[in-house]
Amino acid sequence: MVEKERQRGLITFLSDYGMRDEFVGVCHAVIARRAPCARVIDLTHAIPRHDVRAGAGVLAAAAPYLPQGVHLAVVDPGVGARGALARRALVLRTGSGQLLVGPDNGLLMPAAELLGAPSEALDIGNSRERLRPLSHTFHGRDIFAPVAAALAAGAPLGSLGEPLEIASLRRLELPVARLAGATLHAHVLRSDGFGNVILDARAEQVEELGVSLGEPLAVGYPGGELGARFARAFADVPAGELLLYEDSQRLLALAVNLGSAAALLGVSNDDQIELRRA
Amino acid sequence: MVEKERQRGLITFLSDYGMRDEFVGVCHAVIARRAPCARVIDLTHAIPRHDVRAGAGVLAAAAPYLPQGVHLAVVDPGVGARGALARRALVLRTGSGQLLVGPDNGLLMPAAELLGAPSEALDIGNSRERLRPLSHTFHGRDIFAPVAAALAAGAPLGSLGEPLEIASLRRLELPVARLAGATLHAHVLRSDGFGNVILDARAEQVEELGVSLGEPLAVGYPGGELGARFARAFADVPAGELLLYEDSQRLLALAVNLGSAAALLGVSNDDQIELRRA
Amino acid sequence: MVEKERQRGLITFLSDYGMRDEFVGVCHAVIARRAPCARVIDLTHAIPRHDVRAGAGVLAAAAPYLPQGVHLAVVDPGVGARGALARRALVLRTGSGQLLVGPDNGLLMPAAELLGAPSEALDIGNSRERLRPLSHTFHGRDIFAPVAAALAAGAPLGSLGEPLEIASLRRLELPVARLAGATLHAHVLRSDGFGNVILDARAEQVEELGVSLGEPLAVGYPGGELGARFARAFADVPAGELLLYEDSQRLLALAVNLGSAAALLGVSNDDQIELRRA
Repeated sequence: MVEKERQRGLITFLSDYGMRDEFVGVCHAVIARRAPCARVIDLTHAIPRHDVRAGAGVLAAAAPYLPQGVHLAVVDPGVGARGALARRALVLRTGSGQLLVGPDNGLLMPAAELLGAPSEALDIGNSRERLRPLSHTFHGRDIFAPVAAALAAGAPLGSLGEPLEIASLRRLELPVARLAGATLHAHVLRSDGFGNVILDARAEQVEELGVSLGEPLAVGYPGGELGARFARAFADVPAGELLLYEDSQRLLALAVNLGSAAALLGVSNDDQIELRRA
Repeated sequence: MVEKERQRGLITFLSDYGMRDEFVGVCHAVIARRAPCARVIDLTHAIPRHDVRAGAGVLAAAAPYLPQGVHLAVVDPGVGARGALARRALVLRTGSGQLLVGPDNGLLMPAAELLGAPSEALDIGNSRERLRPLSHTFHGRDIFAPVAAALAAGAPLGSLGEPLEIASLRRLELPVARLAGATLHAHVLRSDGFGNVILDARAEQVEELGVSLGEPLAVGYPGGELGARFARAFADVPAGELLLYEDSQRLLALAVNLGSAAALLGVSNDDQIELRRA
Repeated sequence: MVEKERQRGLITFLSDYGMRDEFVGVCHAVIARRAPCARVIDLTHAIPRHDVRAGAGVLAAAAPYLPQGVHLAVVDPGVGARGALARRALVLRTGSGQLLVGPDNGLLMPAAELLGAPSEALDIGNSRERLRPLSHTFHGRDIFAPVAAALAAGAPLGSLGEPLEIASLRRLELPVARLAGATLHAHVLRSDGFGNVILDARAEQVEELGVSLGEPLAVGYPGGELGARFARAFADVPAGELLLYEDSQRLLALAVNLGSAAALLGVSNDDQIELRRA
């Protein structure tokens, strides 16, 4: 009964493969061969190429909504590298029983922390589930997808690789917003497809500035300074106006009602944003 | 038996979320948690942002091909607005037993009419199926997807919200092609990804102009006038030439064989197109 | 038992429909009506519009990874044409029991050869599974998807159309790399979404030039000549440098580490590429 349940396992899949090629589809095909009854949910494949931090951020943002299952994530600039540049290939089990599969470059760790923290880790670089011949450029197809499929089909975790120390896993260094005097120094984590600019700050930090919902504030950015309103929803400000809001992942973000804050501010990832009472 | 059938329910999903972000994937994840056995078919997520009319048109065009199930559609410029600007969140049941879920801004109505007309409506804005905390910007994830999943999992309709009068539902005002003398005054409904320009007119109306298949006609557009041929298929005119044809949704459309009519004519939604015998 | 197995059939789907419209989603809906239990894997829908050869190449590249099932592929510039321009609509069964569905314009043949060679062919242009009314522009929805769904649902092959001679099927003419003296004359098959330029040559042919892994070589292209390195993986050369590598489909390809070879070389499909020892 449990076995049957596992054979119908669920896999979520995030990558930077894009949808212009067959890479994602071929990974689905590989999964279907190993785990014919598994379902695969594409979280997104539009992570900017090789942007491990953006991938980690999006996976962490999705973490609270993930069903129980296997979470496959591939943003892997080090694929096929050897020697000092090589990265390991991982499966993690978390405290809540979730399984994550992907490269050991920090991609999986913020989500793993939110899913109960990693409690068990395996190096799957030489897993018996690997496809042969193994390519040097497409480990999503040749290592990560087959191992995720094997897990979804009920293969025991221990059979898939060699145990690793949790302390040895690579972690990302992420910016942290901080309050200094009357200014909240935040950073651009990423922009979404609608031009909303996501910051590394939380609503509590704006409230510490003494700015309440509905009140104006000043937004400093590399190109200058603009006024904005701390609002609940886009439609709470007139069309074309800048607002600061708590986004659906509970992070602060800048938006333009019916427009693009990313285009208005011309900001890039990691740019500093300074928020002050107006 | 019926219960089992419903638990394997089918959900179709249309939105303006695009594929550049994880929004669609997170909605799939939310559905999988509430309705593990439901299947989800993505109709399209490339509706132009906030273009409720385009979303309504595409959903109506797909309506004749939809399997029995729950049809989730989210194009929702009013998300999170309060007071006079607020829109309700809806489930509709139609005469043919189809279920539609989405905002009460007219998006669902043209498809609902084609599916047997709405026979029952509920306000699900405070549904017990909502996620908590409820965001102000992502009701697709927090209200619409969970309610669609609950329906696919077999939850009784009446348990999901408060009954509404059908007469109170918002409807869109849509342009209508009309024949005046020797001219058919039509409008651009939308252009598709291949540059085909879809009009609000039907083949019968061109025949009323006295133009038969294979015959030439004149096409007036805001930038001037061009000759075209009333044809069955792209390949019936030489490469690069303009044609008028009955598209796969039985609407008239302008196309350029192996090219783009939208680029040739430079037209936008709602632009007037005048068709005459050449 | 076998019947039940077939009813849970698997369909892969490749096309040039793009994701900007509802075309792919409507085909999924049509499949779900005819074969409610079939699973559909989207291989890719980003084949350049009407590029039959690119579609054939991508399908062939995916062939070794395809699960047993029905493989639906639609790149169909001749849709709706009549008379001499008309193309037939096909189902092929291959020696390994795979089923392919699509237009008879060469699209299916390279993959069919890799899947055991076509052993049985049917003309499905007038199949009883067609939707009615039949459009002239969207046979993916009206012929190919319904027939693929019928096969996935267990319909006997012979019931779906009229037998055809294998020898009568259209095949593509494809370029072939050849060694002449100290030069390997290759051609651009296509570029992928990352700007990697895929050639019609194999690693053995470079080794015949006397170039081993890690060694430099000269790359002649229509705009000039550049140095490159024959490498295993992107990360084996410095950022921004050109490399020649065996790609994940075991074809030779040119890439720029953390960049785009297609942009660097400015090449188009069919352009000649000359490889020599440096």
